[in-house]
Amino acid sequence: MTVQKNIQVEANSMRQWAQACLEKAGAEPKLAQAMAEKLLAADLMGFRTHGLMRLRYNLNCLADGSSRRTGQYHVLKQRAAVQLWDADLVSGLYVVPEAITAAIAMAKECGTGTVVIKRAQHVAALAVYLEQATRAGMLIQIMCATPGQQAVAPYGAKSAWFSPNPFAIGAPTQQLPILLDISLSMTAAGKVRKAIAEQKPLPYPALITAAGDYTSDATTFLADPASVLAPLGGEDLGYKGSGLCLFSELWTLALSQLGRHQEQPGLDANTVWIQVVDPSAFGDADAFKAQAQALVDGMHQATPIDANKPVRIPGEGALTTRERQLQSGVDYTPELWRQLKKVADSMQQPLPDVLD
Amino acid sequence: MTVQKNIQVEANSMRQWAQACLEKAGAEPKLAQAMAEKLLAADLMGFRTHGLMRLRYNLNCLADGSSRRTGQYHVLKQRAAVQLWDADLVSGLYVVPEAITAAIAMAKECGTGTVVIKRAQHVAALAVYLEQATRAGMLIQIMCATPGQQAVAPYGAKSAWFSPNPFAIGAPTQQLPILLDISLSMTAAGKVRKAIAEQKPLPYPALITAAGDYTSDATTFLADPASVLAPLGGEDLGYKGSGLCLFSELWTLALSQLGRHQEQPGLDANTVWIQVVDPSAFGDADAFKAQAQALVDGMHQATPIDANKPVRIPGEGALTTRERQLQSGVDYTPELWRQLKKVADSMQQPLPDVLD
Repeated sequence: MTVQKNIQVEANSMRQWAQACLEKAGAEPKLAQAMAEKLLAADLMGFRTHGLMRLRYNLNCLADGSSRRTGQYHVLKQRAAVQLWDADLVSGLYVVPEAITAAIAMAKECGTGTVVIKRAQHVAALAVYLEQATRAGMLIQIMCATPGQQAVAPYGAKSAWFSPNPFAIGAPTQQLPILLDISLSMTAAGKVRKAIAEQKPLPYPALITAAGDYTSDATTFLADPASVLAPLGGEDLGYKGSGLCLFSELWTLALSQLGRHQEQPGLDANTVWIQVVDPSAFGDADAFKAQAQALVDGMHQATPIDANKPVRIPGEGALTTRERQLQSGVDYTPELWRQLKKVADSMQQPLPDVLD
Repeated sequence: MTVQKNIQVEANSMRQWAQACLEKAGAEPKLAQAMAEKLLAADLMGFRTHGLMRLRYNLNCLADGSSRRTGQYHVLKQRAAVQLWDADLVSGLYVVPEAITAAIAMAKECGTGTVVIKRAQHVAALAVYLEQATRAGMLIQIMCATPGQQAVAPYGAKSAWFSPNPFAIGAPTQQLPILLDISLSMTAAGKVRKAIAEQKPLPYPALITAAGDYTSDATTFLADPASVLAPLGGEDLGYKGSGLCLFSELWTLALSQLGRHQEQPGLDANTVWIQVVDPSAFGDADAFKAQAQALVDGMHQATPIDANKPVRIPGEGALTTRERQLQSGVDYTPELWRQLKKVADSMQQPLPDVLD
């Protein structure tokens, strides 16, 4: 088997191409622009499973009406520091940045600003949203759950109840921002599907079979009955991950009052908790950055277990990957490039030139 | 070896006794009352390492001035939905409930209310504070860090940087409130010390030795160089727990601008993030409780791995333990009772009668 080399493409031309495809599928320009930008942002930061790999899915959703073609969302309720929005199936790739703008404005006024959004289509990687807040000197926390999905077992169970729930934070420092984006389960559904496609086991037992055993065999995820994702903490400490999943779903599903029992099973629309904190409400803004930097410096100075692997700060890897790809082109595997070529053909929007 | 039976004492008389000791040590009555109540509350809920076992410690702190004898704290900064407090070494057992009262008032006005407190002495078990908010129909989230302490390794390291950081949430339902109180490391320092005292290994490898190995040998915690606590997620997924510790310390130490580099090493004063969310800012308050109940019901209905161990909801065990102890007396081991007897003698405050 010959290993085929990755393809490199200039980031901006990929974004323009994706935007053209999305507009052709009916998305109004400001919506198409935001969607293309955030999908490409995921590729740039190395979150491949939430990048242009999902363009076809977004085009289909626009085509069949499960994702709205205009960027209309509704503010349902508000108090000084909080708002509840109904995204009305507009893409999260567009709505989440709008909500962060609103949350930043509330935080400047009140110290914190919170927006809970229900029915946002395809929020994708939370990591791509964080810098909008950190660039404004703000801390941000985002949690996301999916009322139409169940994939994660509560601790002690072998059947799923929670959705895969990502959790993200961002904070400015004196240097690179801190950008954390993790799932509250032992692995994410996308990683299991990737392992199945690559015919590999998971790197550790992150699934619980219908018999109640922890396994790293990804194919059990497609068995009938299927295995489910174990909560963070695993066999010994899964009550912690299970509690964190419950936290996420109380702060999203319960607050938005769109519960799992009310949602169409299988529906992909997300519920999102976004909270921005303005450090200047607590003290000098630059002094906050120095404090955040001191936390990062302390982590960097910890003695590594493996002398060749210094401790990494959340976001460091993603920002390095982005820097590299902005310089020398975004990487696509030959397989993904073939898929994108099919999209290009069906949308009659030729792909940009590949870099040498 | 004969196993000695536990001693039972009526809860109220234990609380009065503890309050009398604290007053004798110089605490003003309202302060002594709150401290006694919250220490006893930890015993009642089964958080023994944060209960009256720590009364001697609190008395010593009052005696040597490291915990203030009057309940004076200072509001340093505020905006509509946030406040920064300096507890000025008043016990967290008194200050945290005061801060929750302030946070609830802000949440009613703004939707959320946040208080960050620095320099609170001995906050103890976060679980005992949650019901103040849930009884008011509010959600609450508390995080606590200790700038003078280092015990938890960042992921990939074998030396400590973070303090042991507990994380707690509370939420009302239609039945029992949800009360979660977990550490963001694989175990807590108190549990390691308990294992050492009982000459037992930890139930799973939760420590990292100076050589960089994960171990369940609790005695390594006292070795020189000592082992450190591993972040939640362990060898495979510790970057998640490490990220959550960083979240906790950004939202406490960095926001309060009292960093580890500014604090006297070994000092026990805590920094606390308290946030209350008013669900009625997002929709009908009773409908929120029904949504939270639906989340709990879904967990209860999940298929248990072991048919004899149904899935438990965070707080269920603690509330059952409290109910039982309120009925038939608070349990104390003979060893702890001997320690409390010594406290009683030195304070010249006789212990209450033991129940038959």
